[in-house]
Amino acid sequence: MQRYAEPISRLIKAFSGLPGIGEKTASRLALYVLNAKNGYVEELLRSIRDVRENVSLCSECMTFSDKDPCSICADRSRDATTVCVVGDYRDMVALEATGSYRGRYHVLHGLLAPLKGIGPDEIKVKELVDRIRRPAPVTVREVILATAFDAEGEATALYLKKVLAPYGLKLTRIAAGIPVGGHIEYMDPSTLGRAMQGRKEA
Amino acid sequence: MQRYAEPISRLIKAFSGLPGIGEKTASRLALYVLNAKNGYVEELLRSIRDVRENVSLCSECMTFSDKDPCSICADRSRDATTVCVVGDYRDMVALEATGSYRGRYHVLHGLLAPLKGIGPDEIKVKELVDRIRRPAPVTVREVILATAFDAEGEATALYLKKVLAPYGLKLTRIAAGIPVGGHIEYMDPSTLGRAMQGRKEA
Repeated sequence: MQRYAEPISRLIKAFSGLPGIGEKTASRLALYVLNAKNGYVEELLRSIRDVRENVSLCSECMTFSDKDPCSICADRSRDATTVCVVGDYRDMVALEATGSYRGRYHVLHGLLAPLKGIGPDEIKVKELVDRIRRPAPVTVREVILATAFDAEGEATALYLKKVLAPYGLKLTRIAAGIPVGGHIEYMDPSTLGRAMQGRKEA
Repeated sequence: MQRYAEPISRLIKAFSGLPGIGEKTASRLALYVLNAKNGYVEELLRSIRDVRENVSLCSECMTFSDKDPCSICADRSRDATTVCVVGDYRDMVALEATGSYRGRYHVLHGLLAPLKGIGPDEIKVKELVDRIRRPAPVTVREVILATAFDAEGEATALYLKKVLAPYGLKLTRIAAGIPVGGHIEYMDPSTLGRAMQGRKEA
């Protein structure tokens, strides 16, 4: 006979399809859902449907939003001449949480990774270039390349630098260095090297 | 401004309600669901609804099942005179996976834990006693107490032994000892003590 009752097995299989959820965790989640209060399960179902039906890409900055333009692009108090380019929606959320950046964003939804078959056409590069070329009332003057300092992030920054060169923009790259609170003795040589290179007058 | 778009925040909150899922994992899951294929999300929604609507307790053994009686209680080839008592549905599934037990089960849905306010009325003890007292064509002759060897499992086994004593049953307890493949040098003193006590002629 099968191990779990059929509907439970199916739900375990569905939960196992989520990233980072193995079969053990999936069975724990399935039994929780089976026993949970009605209100909780209704809210879970409703919020899954809602996110699928009402969230799409902002046509301006490509972020996920339930409005178009998104609340950042629609915010006239924010500097539309500065665009911070990030690889992922969550990178944007993390930068936004600092509360100190008052420009706009552009979400690439990926980074260049030739070995994984991800080239410029697989990420939102064209949309960035179109946005910069647009003869709109607002002209983008600075593009901040805020991708990570790993192979994919660096490759993407380098590629964008080349592609955006013709448009006479100020192109900047976020700083690499020692994280605040990080111990110098535990840092890897590449980080230490970047921190030394990027030194400023004290 | 809020960190995530509102429908995404709500889904993150809903996922955070699942056991063992923190906010970071919940946001990873929410973004996965946002981007997943339609077929996957439909299957996830359907299987959550299905488990809620079609799974309930078998009125005989209290296990979760989409049938009543469950497939084990309905299986006439299984020995109805032997009942293995477990604390949790997953314990039953684990024992069933051994493929060697051919009797029936009784799922308590919990173990006695006075400090957590779980007494006999909070778990399916009454249903077990009723089942044993029932003057049905089938008489339960052996009850196997298959709760764990921790404080709650032991307390529950002890309590059931007392409650079931008047019914003239054979009452047995599963064996405590060294797990197969376990190293004796790494075992805790209680396990080693139980293994010595439970020794048999070789």
